[in-house]
Amino acid sequence: MMALTALPYHARLLGDADIADMLGEKADLAAMIRFEVALARAEAVCGLIDKAHAATIAARLDGFQPDMARLTQATLRDGVPVPELVTQMREAIGGKAAAAVHFGATTQDVIDTALALKLKPVLGLLAQRLETVDDLLSSLIQRFGSRPLMARSRMQAAIMISVADRVAVWRKALAQLASVLPGVADRLLILSLAGAAGTADKFGDRIGPVRVAMATELGLTAPAYVPHTDRDRIAEFASFLSRLTGALGKVGIDVALMAQNGIDQIELSGAGGSSAMPHKRNPVLAEILVTLARFNASQVAGIHQALIHEQERSGSAWTLEWLILPQMIEAGGTALSHAVALLQSIERIGEAG
Amino acid sequence: MMALTALPYHARLLGDADIADMLGEKADLAAMIRFEVALARAEAVCGLIDKAHAATIAARLDGFQPDMARLTQATLRDGVPVPELVTQMREAIGGKAAAAVHFGATTQDVIDTALALKLKPVLGLLAQRLETVDDLLSSLIQRFGSRPLMARSRMQAAIMISVADRVAVWRKALAQLASVLPGVADRLLILSLAGAAGTADKFGDRIGPVRVAMATELGLTAPAYVPHTDRDRIAEFASFLSRLTGALGKVGIDVALMAQNGIDQIELSGAGGSSAMPHKRNPVLAEILVTLARFNASQVAGIHQALIHEQERSGSAWTLEWLILPQMIEAGGTALSHAVALLQSIERIGEAG
Amino acid sequence: MMALTALPYHARLLGDADIADMLGEKADLAAMIRFEVALARAEAVCGLIDKAHAATIAARLDGFQPDMARLTQATLRDGVPVPELVTQMREAIGGKAAAAVHFGATTQDVIDTALALKLKPVLGLLAQRLETVDDLLSSLIQRFGSRPLMARSRMQAAIMISVADRVAVWRKALAQLASVLPGVADRLLILSLAGAAGTADKFGDRIGPVRVAMATELGLTAPAYVPHTDRDRIAEFASFLSRLTGALGKVGIDVALMAQNGIDQIELSGAGGSSAMPHKRNPVLAEILVTLARFNASQVAGIHQALIHEQERSGSAWTLEWLILPQMIEAGGTALSHAVALLQSIERIGEAG
Amino acid sequence: MMALTALPYHARLLGDADIADMLGEKADLAAMIRFEVALARAEAVCGLIDKAHAATIAARLDGFQPDMARLTQATLRDGVPVPELVTQMREAIGGKAAAAVHFGATTQDVIDTALALKLKPVLGLLAQRLETVDDLLSSLIQRFGSRPLMARSRMQAAIMISVADRVAVWRKALAQLASVLPGVADRLLILSLAGAAGTADKFGDRIGPVRVAMATELGLTAPAYVPHTDRDRIAEFASFLSRLTGALGKVGIDVALMAQNGIDQIELSGAGGSSAMPHKRNPVLAEILVTLARFNASQVAGIHQALIHEQERSGSAWTLEWLILPQMIEAGGTALSHAVALLQSIERIGEAG
Repeated sequence: MMALTALPYHARLLGDADIADMLGEKADLAAMIRFEVALARAEAVCGLIDKAHAATIAARLDGFQPDMARLTQATLRDGVPVPELVTQMREAIGGKAAAAVHFGATTQDVIDTALALKLKPVLGLLAQRLETVDDLLSSLIQRFGSRPLMARSRMQAAIMISVADRVAVWRKALAQLASVLPGVADRLLILSLAGAAGTADKFGDRIGPVRVAMATELGLTAPAYVPHTDRDRIAEFASFLSRLTGALGKVGIDVALMAQNGIDQIELSGAGGSSAMPHKRNPVLAEILVTLARFNASQVAGIHQALIHEQERSGSAWTLEWLILPQMIEAGGTALSHAVALLQSIERIGEAG
Repeated sequence: MMALTALPYHARLLGDADIADMLGEKADLAAMIRFEVALARAEAVCGLIDKAHAATIAARLDGFQPDMARLTQATLRDGVPVPELVTQMREAIGGKAAAAVHFGATTQDVIDTALALKLKPVLGLLAQRLETVDDLLSSLIQRFGSRPLMARSRMQAAIMISVADRVAVWRKALAQLASVLPGVADRLLILSLAGAAGTADKFGDRIGPVRVAMATELGLTAPAYVPHTDRDRIAEFASFLSRLTGALGKVGIDVALMAQNGIDQIELSGAGGSSAMPHKRNPVLAEILVTLARFNASQVAGIHQALIHEQERSGSAWTLEWLILPQMIEAGGTALSHAVALLQSIERIGEAG
Repeated sequence: MMALTALPYHARLLGDADIADMLGEKADLAAMIRFEVALARAEAVCGLIDKAHAATIAARLDGFQPDMARLTQATLRDGVPVPELVTQMREAIGGKAAAAVHFGATTQDVIDTALALKLKPVLGLLAQRLETVDDLLSSLIQRFGSRPLMARSRMQAAIMISVADRVAVWRKALAQLASVLPGVADRLLILSLAGAAGTADKFGDRIGPVRVAMATELGLTAPAYVPHTDRDRIAEFASFLSRLTGALGKVGIDVALMAQNGIDQIELSGAGGSSAMPHKRNPVLAEILVTLARFNASQVAGIHQALIHEQERSGSAWTLEWLILPQMIEAGGTALSHAVALLQSIERIGEAG
Repeated sequence: MMALTALPYHARLLGDADIADMLGEKADLAAMIRFEVALARAEAVCGLIDKAHAATIAARLDGFQPDMARLTQATLRDGVPVPELVTQMREAIGGKAAAAVHFGATTQDVIDTALALKLKPVLGLLAQRLETVDDLLSSLIQRFGSRPLMARSRMQAAIMISVADRVAVWRKALAQLASVLPGVADRLLILSLAGAAGTADKFGDRIGPVRVAMATELGLTAPAYVPHTDRDRIAEFASFLSRLTGALGKVGIDVALMAQNGIDQIELSGAGGSSAMPHKRNPVLAEILVTLARFNASQVAGIHQALIHEQERSGSAWTLEWLILPQMIEAGGTALSHAVALLQSIERIGEAG
């Protein structure tokens, strides 16, 4: 399952299997099913649907597998998988409980909540990798920090600094991002439940309790008010991801420049080879960090275009998020993995000799 | 095989199976193998390698299947699949012929020529779909052209025009793009063969004949001089693809606006449904045309960033093309397919009644 | 003084005179002079330069006007105005005090601190306009909130909601941005003082006290550590500006769609005219909100590209910020002004009749 | 008059006075006046308005200066300067001739034709500078072509090539762009005359002759059909400009990398200085070429977003072009100027010693 590339041999260079799994088909279906089950339970608790129906829904959706051919075809027609998915769920549930599933909810509720559910492990993984990178940078400073390094401004030799001076710059930028990640996560990991056109009109005065009960079950929070069309948290997250790959891209360009023959400020183990020139050692991961940074910096514009989300739901703008956000996330995860491997491969940093 | 989305139920809404196949793993491997076989044959004809070796290479690479696990791992190390692929090819060929494969070539030769080979059917398909769209627009003009249509400027009613007036605008933009496509194709469908650092030094004075022989076999042209790092044709193609999705996005936004309840300038069959409001008919394909246009308009920036391709090969910039170009192509192909379906679904265009 | 457009008759449509003044020549020169005077004073207090020299510097730079022709020419040569500006300052100061100006500082210190000084009133103005917009939205809800409004999803009529439902969506997104602005400001309004290559080596152990003294005088904060090349706060600010214009662009597209003849969900006073069709009332400001949103959404990509800021100073990446950030700021300020005027012009919102 | 920067001391580093003049206020007003005079003359010749009125229009608009305060205010209201400009023209013309000015035309006709008129000298200048760059590259090859140069791929030393090998790459990309420029110009240098909503309904069967007469007078061509909303030629031009700055950005990054201390593959005269480190020689123009390339690569996305130009005129999308295109043009012109100066400053290229 790869979003960044369709070529399987690029999978490790330009993708991240963990992230891809967290955002892939299985995770997405599971999250949509979890939404419907949690909704039914919360509605049963709050007296909106029959408790027995909620139990039936939970039981029948346990292990539910949609007919993928029908789902794919219907998604082309509807622009979203949810209406057909709900139809198939109703077939699987059967009886009177069938009508109780998805009660009061709308497509955006399902898809946006499913996104939050999928993002939960993703954000945990990003935080964990940021910590590993920080540890590696700290260890680099310990091992090599006092070695001299010729500073370069405008790509020209400036004055001698220490390795610690440069590595601390890398570390500071990433520490800043690690410190804002929890706030970004708080705004992302929320329940969306507002019904058709966002007015929750089928819920009456029970919308509050249903939201709380559902959010609790799903491990999300339930802000009092989340308009479907407020996409600011998505733009904030995309910006975060691009800031993250940007900070790692700065590490990448610095390493690639330090590794140049004739500059020789760094030595990497296991650098890549060439089909025509076997003697070359290429700083592949450093270059790819730059690639991923430039990739996300391009993508962030697309997500910001999607802020112009008209009326109560924009098919155009919302779908644009789907095309871009998963790739930005995978690029962010891949960049962190590559940074870990790159930093681990440093055998020397600082002027040679 | 999907590049635009990892979710299989999005495959038809946000992807194009034909294009995906033309750019996917099987096509890519086949193109790289074709490169090596054609190179060997051309080199044998020109006396650079033994004819028997060329025959052995062709025979042994017929049906060659690389070890994908090793290839994926090596691509992470090398940044490109070619060195490991050549190693595996040599193992498969065996004997003295093994050393003759890939003689004088370098990674860029293989990958850029493979891109041209993959693009050949793609460009044919785009041209064919453009023709179908043109036929459908022509037919719309015939069927509905004389009907009145309220022109709108700045989204306000302006003066009454005819359906033909508006549809001709759509048609003109697409006709312009169809007319430039052959020139774009001429610049794309070329052999890259220049060896390490682009000097073709292993070929001596036979580089010209080898290029001509190889290009002939591969159905490409062999310009006298194609520097590896001249990426202008890629930027031109990306711009073309975004102009294409832009022209179709204009059709999409116009149709979506015409389809509004209260405006009612168009009637579409089979429009999409809602999970919460079964009475709604959503102009899904029209919206997706806008999505794909905004997607490619964002991506084109990334490809243009990759023009800053340093020295004799930039790992960073070149890889950025790989992440973006296939998606832009698939978005272009998908937009054309959706335009065909959307135009076919028009039951009425022009003011109602 | 306009950054967004060189055409003076576009100045009010596509620019904001207040913001332009805050970022223009006069403000920039004043900020750079304030930097040098505050630096000299702080260094005198901390015993790094003579107190009399600091007094002379402050006196002679009061009203200092550089030779603009020489400055412009030197900026072409140096890539930055600072070296020549300091030369001219030294000429203006004369005597022994001349050598004391700019002691220990480097170009980035001057320009990045000057940016913070210029941003201070800008951020205040943005906050104030956000408040005005919020007041206007609150007043709209009071005046028209209970009127019915046909909700639209995928541009199709959905179910009847109230005006308050839609306006609350606009308000929520802007309230969220108003709530994050102080944090963004905290990270922007900082002193940069780190000397050549960022090691503050001319300051010895007095760097801390100098920073505190200088920051106090300038009304900025002095974080312990601000690497010149950590541009994350710039990317965060650019993202904020694009989120801001995006939220206002959503208001704009909604108003433009509501204002369509045939939809008629809003009535605006003073809407724009046409040279050919005097009867038309165009929702010009609503459209321009969309324009500014799409403009900033494009620009944000450029600022994120500039995160890949190599080594101790990148001439390329830093200069890219200068080309883009002022325009994004002016677009943000203009969008807020236009939103105020647009909301004030609303005579009715909600279904007619 | 600067579009790329509001700071006058950046004017030569980040702007081009010639281009700025060609696109500035004076040129824009002159072009709009030329449009109206040529329209009146052509309409008189074709019998649509009185010949005496055409003569009066021409006489009274000779030297016409609008009231800029009123024009600026009206542009804010109307979104375009044309309605107010025509009103003021009518006041200046007076009598019965006043009603004849602008007959049958609409705002887009004026502004799009004015753009073509302004672009004519711009395109000539770009072509001329491309030729100068080509001459300089040719001369570099003559002077230094046979010197050895260590090729670098993935930023690592590869094999020894010659200076001619690398410079030929630069030259080839620019030659390709010079060869496509005339075609781009053909599509840009056209008359737009289609009247309200694009149907030329006030012209009846005389639209053809009026177009030919007008285009002849203005030195443009008059294609049979130019829909106002076909913005493909604008997207093509923006793509061209970004391909141009991209090709020059490749030269810039190569020179900046060659100029590194420790690599020393190039020697430049007059490189820039540092405020803190007077010994440094910074390859400022090379870096700025990269900046301008990344700038235009970001902007091209905005112009492509503007392809989604709804209905008969989109205020949003069209205005977005105005914000972006002039800057891209000026960035292109500036990059060519800087490339000329940079190439002229090369004192040695190739390995030292």
